[in-house]
Amino acid sequence: MKLNFHIKPEIRILGVDDSALISDEIMIVGTVFRGGGWMDGVLRSEITRDGKDATEVICRMAKRSKHYGQLRVIMLDGVTYGGFNVVDISKLNKETGLPVIVVMRSYPDFEKIRGALGHFTDGEERLGVIEKAGRIEEVVTKKPENPIYIQKAGIGFDSAKKIVRLTATRSNIPEPLRVAHMIATGIVFGESRGKA
Amino acid sequence: MKLNFHIKPEIRILGVDDSALISDEIMIVGTVFRGGGWMDGVLRSEITRDGKDATEVICRMAKRSKHYGQLRVIMLDGVTYGGFNVVDISKLNKETGLPVIVVMRSYPDFEKIRGALGHFTDGEERLGVIEKAGRIEEVVTKKPENPIYIQKAGIGFDSAKKIVRLTATRSNIPEPLRVAHMIATGIVFGESRGKA
Repeated sequence: MKLNFHIKPEIRILGVDDSALISDEIMIVGTVFRGGGWMDGVLRSEITRDGKDATEVICRMAKRSKHYGQLRVIMLDGVTYGGFNVVDISKLNKETGLPVIVVMRSYPDFEKIRGALGHFTDGEERLGVIEKAGRIEEVVTKKPENPIYIQKAGIGFDSAKKIVRLTATRSNIPEPLRVAHMIATGIVFGESRGKA
Repeated sequence: MKLNFHIKPEIRILGVDDSALISDEIMIVGTVFRGGGWMDGVLRSEITRDGKDATEVICRMAKRSKHYGQLRVIMLDGVTYGGFNVVDISKLNKETGLPVIVVMRSYPDFEKIRGALGHFTDGEERLGVIEKAGRIEEVVTKKPENPIYIQKAGIGFDSAKKIVRLTATRSNIPEPLRVAHMIATGIVFGESRGKA
């Protein structure tokens, strides 16, 4: 596997975010971006709240898109979508053939996660998928006082860091994820909302 | 009324497009853009297919947004939304206090419009609102071979033309409308679609 590669300024990225937990079916939104510049496409799918279909749905979202042939990276906003529907990033990487970069606004609180997963009969299994996402590393993007944290699959840390920095053009969060979040919250609530 | 004004590169614009006619309630999507650059927010509302609420709903969408105080222009994709739900652009201009620019990909086919409106008992009235939108003028943006057509309310042609050219950074269509269209079709169909 090629873990380090040349990054074009207009590298095509699929960024995926979920919407609020307002029903058992949770909308997820994908944005197809050219680097940190502009948007080429919008995708939409549904996952089950606290279900186990997030990996498969995001995989299908990428592979069924007309942009699939151009995509070079998938970016996720954390590894849990629609509650505790955990994305297996190694599996997503293998099945799409695309590197996966997970972006987190803050270092995850594993004690809190373990507590919440205690309510699931298969909590240990879900925690295993979360832990399998690997080492969490800090990256400084636009705001030195506000670093973000990343995990990755199918890509080296240096390349992942370069892509995250290249695309965080408007805030400390890469554009594909910032915009996917705005669309998901805007469509569900009527007006987009910021993220804590 | 100030018809010509200084245009900042990051002028805040609300661009509104509708989604496909798949039910009696049609989703409309608003994007808040900084010039032709980047998106600051996403808005969503519903109008009635072939109804008469488009003017009021778009007016409310603009005025209820947290971005309202920063907005300087509203951009529309034609004057008919959700079938033949016609936007009265003078009224929208007066009630929001914001200039309105209507963008069309091609010169409207009035014969076809009149034919379709013949099926409405109040077709004459709707045609009146369409005609009230005023003179249709050509503007060349990114592609000289592919000019667009504009109408306006509360703004002079020169300023409207400048704003349209400033914001058509990625195609011949201003970014607020190009992106609103991608979001509306992406959310409704699962993947965004181009426009004929």
